[in-house]
Amino acid sequence: MSRGDMAKPLLGHGSAAGERSPPVAPAGRTVGVLGSGDFARSLAVRLVRSGFRVVVGSRNPKRKASLFPAAAEVTFQAEAVKKADVIFVAIFREHYSTLCDLADVLVGKILVDVSNNTEINHHKESNAEYLASLFPACTVVKAFNVVSAWTLQSGARDGNKQVLICSNNQEAKHTIAEIAQVMGFTPVDMGCMSSACEIENIPLRLLPAWKIPIFLALGLFLCFFTYNLIRQVIHPYIREQKNKLYKIPIEVVNTTLPCVSYVMLSLVYLPGVLAACSQLYYGTKYRRFPDWLDQWLQHRKQIGLLSFFCAALHAVYSLCLPMRRSHRYLLIETAVKQAMEKKMTIWVEEEVWRMEIYISVGIIALGLLSLLAITSLPSIANSLNWREFSFIQSSLGFIALVISTLHTLTYGWSRAFDENQYKFYLPPTYTLTLLVPCTVIIARVIFSLPCIQHRLLRIRRGWEKGRCTDFLELMTAKIPCLLSVWISQGSEV
Amino acid sequence: MSRGDMAKPLLGHGSAAGERSPPVAPAGRTVGVLGSGDFARSLAVRLVRSGFRVVVGSRNPKRKASLFPAAAEVTFQAEAVKKADVIFVAIFREHYSTLCDLADVLVGKILVDVSNNTEINHHKESNAEYLASLFPACTVVKAFNVVSAWTLQSGARDGNKQVLICSNNQEAKHTIAEIAQVMGFTPVDMGCMSSACEIENIPLRLLPAWKIPIFLALGLFLCFFTYNLIRQVIHPYIREQKNKLYKIPIEVVNTTLPCVSYVMLSLVYLPGVLAACSQLYYGTKYRRFPDWLDQWLQHRKQIGLLSFFCAALHAVYSLCLPMRRSHRYLLIETAVKQAMEKKMTIWVEEEVWRMEIYISVGIIALGLLSLLAITSLPSIANSLNWREFSFIQSSLGFIALVISTLHTLTYGWSRAFDENQYKFYLPPTYTLTLLVPCTVIIARVIFSLPCIQHRLLRIRRGWEKGRCTDFLELMTAKIPCLLSVWISQGSEV
Amino acid sequence: MSRGDMAKPLLGHGSAAGERSPPVAPAGRTVGVLGSGDFARSLAVRLVRSGFRVVVGSRNPKRKASLFPAAAEVTFQAEAVKKADVIFVAIFREHYSTLCDLADVLVGKILVDVSNNTEINHHKESNAEYLASLFPACTVVKAFNVVSAWTLQSGARDGNKQVLICSNNQEAKHTIAEIAQVMGFTPVDMGCMSSACEIENIPLRLLPAWKIPIFLALGLFLCFFTYNLIRQVIHPYIREQKNKLYKIPIEVVNTTLPCVSYVMLSLVYLPGVLAACSQLYYGTKYRRFPDWLDQWLQHRKQIGLLSFFCAALHAVYSLCLPMRRSHRYLLIETAVKQAMEKKMTIWVEEEVWRMEIYISVGIIALGLLSLLAITSLPSIANSLNWREFSFIQSSLGFIALVISTLHTLTYGWSRAFDENQYKFYLPPTYTLTLLVPCTVIIARVIFSLPCIQHRLLRIRRGWEKGRCTDFLELMTAKIPCLLSVWISQGSEV
Repeated sequence: MSRGDMAKPLLGHGSAAGERSPPVAPAGRTVGVLGSGDFARSLAVRLVRSGFRVVVGSRNPKRKASLFPAAAEVTFQAEAVKKADVIFVAIFREHYSTLCDLADVLVGKILVDVSNNTEINHHKESNAEYLASLFPACTVVKAFNVVSAWTLQSGARDGNKQVLICSNNQEAKHTIAEIAQVMGFTPVDMGCMSSACEIENIPLRLLPAWKIPIFLALGLFLCFFTYNLIRQVIHPYIREQKNKLYKIPIEVVNTTLPCVSYVMLSLVYLPGVLAACSQLYYGTKYRRFPDWLDQWLQHRKQIGLLSFFCAALHAVYSLCLPMRRSHRYLLIETAVKQAMEKKMTIWVEEEVWRMEIYISVGIIALGLLSLLAITSLPSIANSLNWREFSFIQSSLGFIALVISTLHTLTYGWSRAFDENQYKFYLPPTYTLTLLVPCTVIIARVIFSLPCIQHRLLRIRRGWEKGRCTDFLELMTAKIPCLLSVWISQGSEV
Repeated sequence: MSRGDMAKPLLGHGSAAGERSPPVAPAGRTVGVLGSGDFARSLAVRLVRSGFRVVVGSRNPKRKASLFPAAAEVTFQAEAVKKADVIFVAIFREHYSTLCDLADVLVGKILVDVSNNTEINHHKESNAEYLASLFPACTVVKAFNVVSAWTLQSGARDGNKQVLICSNNQEAKHTIAEIAQVMGFTPVDMGCMSSACEIENIPLRLLPAWKIPIFLALGLFLCFFTYNLIRQVIHPYIREQKNKLYKIPIEVVNTTLPCVSYVMLSLVYLPGVLAACSQLYYGTKYRRFPDWLDQWLQHRKQIGLLSFFCAALHAVYSLCLPMRRSHRYLLIETAVKQAMEKKMTIWVEEEVWRMEIYISVGIIALGLLSLLAITSLPSIANSLNWREFSFIQSSLGFIALVISTLHTLTYGWSRAFDENQYKFYLPPTYTLTLLVPCTVIIARVIFSLPCIQHRLLRIRRGWEKGRCTDFLELMTAKIPCLLSVWISQGSEV
Repeated sequence: MSRGDMAKPLLGHGSAAGERSPPVAPAGRTVGVLGSGDFARSLAVRLVRSGFRVVVGSRNPKRKASLFPAAAEVTFQAEAVKKADVIFVAIFREHYSTLCDLADVLVGKILVDVSNNTEINHHKESNAEYLASLFPACTVVKAFNVVSAWTLQSGARDGNKQVLICSNNQEAKHTIAEIAQVMGFTPVDMGCMSSACEIENIPLRLLPAWKIPIFLALGLFLCFFTYNLIRQVIHPYIREQKNKLYKIPIEVVNTTLPCVSYVMLSLVYLPGVLAACSQLYYGTKYRRFPDWLDQWLQHRKQIGLLSFFCAALHAVYSLCLPMRRSHRYLLIETAVKQAMEKKMTIWVEEEVWRMEIYISVGIIALGLLSLLAITSLPSIANSLNWREFSFIQSSLGFIALVISTLHTLTYGWSRAFDENQYKFYLPPTYTLTLLVPCTVIIARVIFSLPCIQHRLLRIRRGWEKGRCTDFLELMTAKIPCLLSVWISQGSEV
């Protein structure tokens, strides 16, 4: 790192000119910034570099001037406001009221609220709406709060380049959108001011939809891992004093992962079955589901993706099995033993068939799950209509569940009936995992019986028990030709 | 499922207040809904939950009131229309004419057409255009038809959240877009009313672009599977009474998949070669290609993706080979045999080299195909310009085809000249698959000969045989520096 | 290819009627095209097919008429301009001045600049801005330059369907956006005219961000490949006259790939460490980094993706190892040797453990890297906020680096201390790769010491050495609750 290179000051004179990307000056528009905190400074840096004239308003301009780029003018708040039509309000919500002295000069200006909260739904009304209520003569636009100070300072590179914008004034929204564009961001119109609350909550969340599914997966993993550990490692140690500890990193994990994946996949389709039961029982689709079921329905995508992730890991682990030194040693030992006993044939036709079938069925299941995962990508999902999406996610997904069940059953083969497999009286792991998936499959078979299917279909078209309804108006418009899809989508509910 | 949870009525009083996400009221706008079918009800539920005041217009308000959320006002059609500026017309196209009595009160209102058809291009003009022709004094907006009643009722969760909107009136479009936004959907501006037909066709299609490619892949799979079955299972059974049935689930499938993948990949580049031939023959690029070639050109992406899918499956199947019990048994049997015959060396240098080379070449081909597949993702494709896209899809794709050919040739090695490989006089499968790919490769080599390349380039720049053209105007503007890209893109045509 | 099919002329009468997709006529709008080059012709073809009335303006209409679709009217330039409100200017920038004679008739028209340059930033001002300066009485819109003549002619199929549009006039932009929509493209609003320069540069670039990372990867590959070749092939040949050439295609490549992947992954996090050092040294975050560091910071995403690509290839290569003939031969030879020596046990507990651990750790590292790669997809990145994005890319990525280090260390085990591993005095490859990653890990451990972490945090909140700042205004607004994220994002800088 040569000192010469470092000598170029970031906030020096004419820093805009030294930029790699040519400065694009949108007609040299003047933009105001109120505040002198970190965000205000980063904002000013980016605005200057993007070719804007920046006027910073501070209560103590002399002291703060040195903090801002030389190209930015730092002056008193009232002065700054007078010089610009668009004012970025980069101060705390708590200090909004200190701006009330400027109410006169602010009339007719566009105020951009960039603030964030520290808690979700902290205040009753969003910061932007609060600002708008303080200055009814201004046009308030919510924007740039989803952008971090760091992104502002270094320019939008990777990751999310979107700036979410909302306002009740179309024109003001357009102005701010163009400024965001020039600054290198992608403006996204989020509609009117009522979206401000939602926009302010965004920077506070950390993958909220993934929390429950991840804990669910971890919980299942722990349970099955312990169970398999007892059967595969502890049992041989206690009963036969055999040290099988080396099995823990790969073999025990690899018998645990498919269990987690398989149960999680069935948990994607279980709430649909419960919903259908509830609809059949109450004879209407207009009764709201209980909260836990609603939550569950909303997390199906994440549960399904974790199921796929576990299935993919299981595939990689399985493929690594023959690479291991232990596999090699056991193979050679068997060969040597056979050679010394002069036994030529060790071919067991049943074992060969079992393995050929369960491997090939497993590959097909993995292929289907990959299709499901790929169609979950936002850009793919947006290119599908709801009929296509529900066909893939519901029908193909259910087929994947059925094939996974075949994979499990052929893997298990007749072990469930073999006494030796009951270590400490614990049944083989695969028998435990079959419980939920088989319930789901049987339920869906029952739902496809003509009498029940007919009733479900009527309910899903809007029919309600004990209420006479005529089907004249658009009730069936979307359905007649789509029966098969509805059946599947229905059970997906 | 506790009864207490279920007791919360879906359509009860104040259901909006009970929502998890805080109700965002866009200035308490009043919205009208005409119709009382399933879609109308689901629409009303969502609108009420999103904070709108909803007025439902029905011909029999008393009887229908109980079907709607308590927060929605159900009244006579004329009443409802008077109270709202935005009216959702949730009735059948066949019943549009029944609204003609309301023509007077409808003047100046925004009518939102949400209807769908049961067949693609069922009527000469779209439903929305028909509605607009009936009520010339109204502003008609087409929207929400791509959303299912179920999505409306449960809120936009996964999958496609887009609401496609078109109208000849910008302002009306904006109003509806903002309503869609508040309801949790992503409005997409589809331009003027002439797009209505297209929008109405969307919910009726089920992956139309995939039908031909999938049938093509299935057809190829069946042919090659039968061929391989005869060679690998039936031949040894008939000639040597050896039972090789266990090979069907994995080995036969795994020799079939690469054939399908390889032929499909060459079919992606064959139409480009045919198009270039046609251009060379007719001496112009402005002559339309025959329909079948046009269709083919349009399905290249899907054919390519299926080719990649088969290649990926082939890779997984191949990696599973050493895991199988049969592989293990054969290995041990060989070892035992060797040990009993006291033979130490079984190393065949040629076999070793053949396998090392074809595996490593195969991995490289798979790596290239993955790059092609990834750049086909809509979000990646949109971040590439046409030069980058054609570089990857055309140049890298062709390189992948050449490397796949090397993979096939090294796999085959000298088997084509080995008499024992001709089971029932049938040549080894790999020789059959080489036909199309080699044609494509040879054709592209010929096209790159200077004389032919020069002629093709001229044609692609707009030159036509027997027509004098000056190249003054923007004819070459895009080309000079892009020669190499054009060659490749050209042959991709 | 039947002649009958080919007989349908592309530019014949009523070609629009013969289209598969129904022609959508946006109120039969008339559109003008100036120019008769290849692009102008392709544009006219597409416009006619999309249902527009097209008037082509040429200086020699009689001679040029035959070049255009019959449905397009070809006339003198002045005539054409008079008949349409929207004029596509499909001529070279050099010839713009020839249009000055038309200045009178052009008043008030929308001029669409579709031109491209042959070099990036060729002229001082963009073509569109130059056109606007020549015709101040017109509204100039930049559009369609990112579309190739071929895409225009054949219709937007795969790849990028976006048409980037910019203009200082909102309404004109909307008009052109709707025309683009009708033509089957996706209009993208790029803001005001100052974006024209950027839009004109787009078709000229060919993956510029990938050049340095790809050369870096190739360079590292070559170095490590040579090093491994010497150790694994040349050394045994020279010292023991053993022919190990067969190892080149798979084994040498497979020991090279993980080295490249591992070093590249550490190079993603090294610039963040350097940036933090620089910030600590200068005591401010507002000093610009030297150019090379800035460049490096900007290429981290590409370096990371290449690292993942190498890791994935390494996984596939490793999984292929037991499939190889050489592996089979060596296995059988060992077995036979053991059998002949009547040695039953070859089990080496340490070797077993080493391999079980490094394989399972490697799988976990690969799983984490896949998550990083998936969240780099534009459509996924756009659905994450910066906190989530930095959590995944920075924290998970660093964990992946630590786990990769464990993978490398367990793979190496005690080989670094084994004299036999020093072929030609060259240390085992893995010891070389550990250098950079360990530096990064140690640096980040040091940065997490309370005293240094505190200082870094203060600097990143805007504090500067030797400058008194009050933290009143929005300085800490985004930080208090996000400490842990900032630490990680900080070190990611």
